[in-house]
Amino acid sequence: MSELTGQPGSLLESVKGPQDLKLLGADELPRLAAEVRDLLISSTARTGGHLGPNLGVVELTIAIHRVFDSPRDRILWDTGHQAYVHKMLTGRAGRFDTLRQEGGLSGYPSQAESEHDIIENSHASTALSYADGLAKAYRLRGEDDRTVVAVIGDGALTGGMAWEALNNIAAQKDLPLVIVVNDNGRSYSPTIGGLASHLASLRASQRYEDMLDFVKDNLNRVPLVGPPVYDALHGVKKGLKDVLAPQVMFEDLGLKYIGLVDGHDEQAVEGALRRAQAFRRPVIVHVLTKKGFGYSPAENHDEDCFHSPGVFDPLTGEEKPKPHGWTNVFSQEIVRLAAERRDIVAITAAMLGPTGLIPFAEAYPDRLYDVGIAEQHALTSAAGLALGGLHPVVAVYATFLNRAFDQLLMDVALHRLPVTVVLDRAGVTGDDGASHNGMWDLSILQVVPGLSIAVPRDEPRLRELLAEAVRVDDGPTVVRYPKGPVGPEIEAVGRLGEMDVLRAGDPDVLLVAVGPMAEICMDAAGLLDAQGISATVVDPRWVKPLDEALVLAARAHKLVVVVEDGGRVGGVGDAVARMLRDADVDVPVRTYGIPQRFLDHAKRAKILGDIGLTAQDIAREITEAVAKRSPVLENHPAR
Amino acid sequence: MSELTGQPGSLLESVKGPQDLKLLGADELPRLAAEVRDLLISSTARTGGHLGPNLGVVELTIAIHRVFDSPRDRILWDTGHQAYVHKMLTGRAGRFDTLRQEGGLSGYPSQAESEHDIIENSHASTALSYADGLAKAYRLRGEDDRTVVAVIGDGALTGGMAWEALNNIAAQKDLPLVIVVNDNGRSYSPTIGGLASHLASLRASQRYEDMLDFVKDNLNRVPLVGPPVYDALHGVKKGLKDVLAPQVMFEDLGLKYIGLVDGHDEQAVEGALRRAQAFRRPVIVHVLTKKGFGYSPAENHDEDCFHSPGVFDPLTGEEKPKPHGWTNVFSQEIVRLAAERRDIVAITAAMLGPTGLIPFAEAYPDRLYDVGIAEQHALTSAAGLALGGLHPVVAVYATFLNRAFDQLLMDVALHRLPVTVVLDRAGVTGDDGASHNGMWDLSILQVVPGLSIAVPRDEPRLRELLAEAVRVDDGPTVVRYPKGPVGPEIEAVGRLGEMDVLRAGDPDVLLVAVGPMAEICMDAAGLLDAQGISATVVDPRWVKPLDEALVLAARAHKLVVVVEDGGRVGGVGDAVARMLRDADVDVPVRTYGIPQRFLDHAKRAKILGDIGLTAQDIAREITEAVAKRSPVLENHPAR
Repeated sequence: MSELTGQPGSLLESVKGPQDLKLLGADELPRLAAEVRDLLISSTARTGGHLGPNLGVVELTIAIHRVFDSPRDRILWDTGHQAYVHKMLTGRAGRFDTLRQEGGLSGYPSQAESEHDIIENSHASTALSYADGLAKAYRLRGEDDRTVVAVIGDGALTGGMAWEALNNIAAQKDLPLVIVVNDNGRSYSPTIGGLASHLASLRASQRYEDMLDFVKDNLNRVPLVGPPVYDALHGVKKGLKDVLAPQVMFEDLGLKYIGLVDGHDEQAVEGALRRAQAFRRPVIVHVLTKKGFGYSPAENHDEDCFHSPGVFDPLTGEEKPKPHGWTNVFSQEIVRLAAERRDIVAITAAMLGPTGLIPFAEAYPDRLYDVGIAEQHALTSAAGLALGGLHPVVAVYATFLNRAFDQLLMDVALHRLPVTVVLDRAGVTGDDGASHNGMWDLSILQVVPGLSIAVPRDEPRLRELLAEAVRVDDGPTVVRYPKGPVGPEIEAVGRLGEMDVLRAGDPDVLLVAVGPMAEICMDAAGLLDAQGISATVVDPRWVKPLDEALVLAARAHKLVVVVEDGGRVGGVGDAVARMLRDADVDVPVRTYGIPQRFLDHAKRAKILGDIGLTAQDIAREITEAVAKRSPVLENHPAR
Repeated sequence: MSELTGQPGSLLESVKGPQDLKLLGADELPRLAAEVRDLLISSTARTGGHLGPNLGVVELTIAIHRVFDSPRDRILWDTGHQAYVHKMLTGRAGRFDTLRQEGGLSGYPSQAESEHDIIENSHASTALSYADGLAKAYRLRGEDDRTVVAVIGDGALTGGMAWEALNNIAAQKDLPLVIVVNDNGRSYSPTIGGLASHLASLRASQRYEDMLDFVKDNLNRVPLVGPPVYDALHGVKKGLKDVLAPQVMFEDLGLKYIGLVDGHDEQAVEGALRRAQAFRRPVIVHVLTKKGFGYSPAENHDEDCFHSPGVFDPLTGEEKPKPHGWTNVFSQEIVRLAAERRDIVAITAAMLGPTGLIPFAEAYPDRLYDVGIAEQHALTSAAGLALGGLHPVVAVYATFLNRAFDQLLMDVALHRLPVTVVLDRAGVTGDDGASHNGMWDLSILQVVPGLSIAVPRDEPRLRELLAEAVRVDDGPTVVRYPKGPVGPEIEAVGRLGEMDVLRAGDPDVLLVAVGPMAEICMDAAGLLDAQGISATVVDPRWVKPLDEALVLAARAHKLVVVVEDGGRVGGVGDAVARMLRDADVDVPVRTYGIPQRFLDHAKRAKILGDIGLTAQDIAREITEAVAKRSPVLENHPAR
């Protein structure tokens, strides 16, 4: 019995690396593929993970590792979440029960895990640029036998980086670089835009060689007079693509193109890849796959083909219901606001479902724009919409806004345009590892002139601040909230300017709680009370610009502590400290946030504990700080 | 006599706005074009400015304003530096002597100047996204009569944003949106990549309708048997583009295409634009222009066709020689380093000349990569080169690195790759206005884990720090320097860890001078001396990470002052303050830098004066701060 699949004589178990894969007969591969799918389903059912994309690339991944010689040849997985099969075939099948668990396998390629892994970043559309650089390096070093293979989805091709890379790769005639386009017609949801239509037209004409032969034969049989020839040529002139064979736009760029290939016919894929390998120049292999292939609950899942389910029942595909989360609140509220305000439109970058915009899209289909995996365009198109008198709301994961920083700064803020950016998955996200954590926005957005940033602490505040944000008409606004369930409601006991006072204390410590950190700060204040230290807790609600009332509040305390769910460097803590310095207030400030390093994957709560963002840790450190500087706090001249 | 051109009866003077232009007869337009060119040459000869691009769009701009109805129709200029002619034709010809001068005309469109101006951002490749948003807004508001016109260069089409926008626009069948591709085959230097080859192939077959007719006629005349038909079809199958008529890749995306149009035949351009206007759907008008057209010194200027000369002699085109600047030093040093280190390769994003890489390209042509206007690809391709064992040096203007923030963070830093980014034009640049100032990098780069940032204060330090940067092999490095001439050399009087001590003082004030601010700080220290305040001046050289020795130095002083040529928010000042807080050092810190707002155009020195970054201002403020807190400085318990 195999540990992996529960089947006797598991093939997958025998594959310790790509070299073992090459020893298998073609007739054994369907069984291997079935075993891989069984393991994908059974393990992600327990751990959650990117099931749909991986079910779609089983045969493709087998073929790649049979044809190429990793790690001598380099296999680059764009976006990375479809590398599970690659992990299984490179010696990690036995560890799949640890997927996305602390200390276990990453949900993305990981250099620490394997010499076969390269790109750890989960942001889409990067692989072709890496491939360009790698292949150029090997050429320069004379390592001409190495082939660089980049696997990229049709969805990721809608991202501008991919275009930049294709434009460059096309100009390098002698790079042995194979681009596998994994065309499943979807990112999360169906791929959009002109490229998608073009790929669809290619798909619709799959047997174009046959068709061409057919037409040629018929032309040769008709009476040999002018008109048919003319008509044929006329049709040709209008564009063969519409008549017989689509021109492939990649070829317009000068790239060799091999396609279409049935991505679930392993032998067909192998054949195409061997031709591509022999070419020793940049070549695109266009492979058609089906997201969720071989598992009917995924194949039949309209929204996203089980893109990334949580824990689910492997037999029925039924997912464990998710708790009421921040995304739901936004999802409801934006629809409500849109009913009142006809100028509100919404934009998503290929994340309609994950950002909570499906109800909006259903209610206002003509006011919803899915721009593809194209955050730059999302922001600048929003600038255009705002110039046209509308109020766009761009909903995006916090980490992906980094892609559009320049556009938010120069296209939106420089023009003082009323665009609201809603950042989901802000702060520590956890399972998806370093590149998914939304720990950058509170820092880099501080520099954007005229931008206002709201951080709601609970559900009523998200509703309230979103409404306030869309009322701002002279510049951009950001509303950011974390992944997962909304915490308890914390009512204000008073108001100080724009700030909510959550707890009034004596003049010992002023705790500035950034949004959802209010819960931890209230708990910490309770713990401090027990130590005889009195803490005031305020929630600024808007962390940029900070309310001047904070200066008054700080003057009335002996220590200011800022707690935020963002990187410590350049965040709200630094902003508070600067504000006080600029006001000539030298009250000591201490800041708590995410340490400025890349975090390994683990559960959000575990990570917050590890980095000291807990009420206990903060209360303990404040107690120590107060003890250390008690002369200062007691107003004694000890220095 | 016209004030504008010195000619009697100036036509240009009679054009107060687009409506006047429409009244002119076609026969008068060549004279108008000549007057526009005269004014372009005579005014930029005095003020400097983007001459070459504007000489190329004279007829195109006249045609646009004769066909469309600005500001009801919206004319969007990508990159913006080719909007001089547009400014002249919209009532601003009389003010051209104030171009790029403080209080005068901006070198880019400016909403404050004219209702005809829209995009103020000078970063390339944005216009199509704006156009997409604007056109969608008008559709939603029922303002269907308005046409949105975006003018974009072939160079800007190499930027990924343009691709993202095209992909979206192609999917919107009913948007009246005209995309004018101003194809001059260049950005600064010739446009690169597969797209450029494709456009070149289009150009090479300019008369393709004629050719098609010719071939059709001949086919009809040859004996009507099978083979010729077959051969014709076979040729067709191989791609008409290679045989007769190039397929246009824009059409593959589903965009209507009108081209090629001779961009210096005003009537031809008008005709094409009228067809496009009537179409009421997205359409591309492909216009061929010549950068520098009509002015032989520009036409014959190989490097960049007088892209943006400084002051020059209008008769000969001879430019005033530029002083020895930071770019020259880098230019020499990188060639020297590359001779020692065969693993050094260099990357530019279509800015070979401006970033000083021409000598490198001449010395090591196979180690230089011009990737087009594609900063994202530049960084991630660099990541690939580094993975392949090389040490890439990416030379880019500081403001444009914002385009690749995510790539530096996730593709380079997350993978701890040895990539050196050289930021030219860092800090206040001046003439080019808000979007050219490099006032963001010192702040947003602070958040990047494992990144080191060097800021040289003078020529020897640039040589030294560049050499140190390319020796770092476990993560990315940045070296940043300003625009213009290098200041005086300032020798260290000692070393404290990685820091240079430039001036030793008593324990009053510690001045932390970031790079070129050393000169101002030394002067300020002199002024403070006269007030009886002793200042130590240190230059950290590496501002990230800061040397721990700074904590020791701070402890020994009563006030710490940081002076930097970057935005105050989140910059080195904030980093120093955080470092001291984290070390439990509560010495007051004061920070001087660029205020966090968009700066109007003016000379760099003038702006630095206006924002208080002068020795006098800083010395005065320190004197006041010391006076205010003299009890603290004297160690008295005054609080």
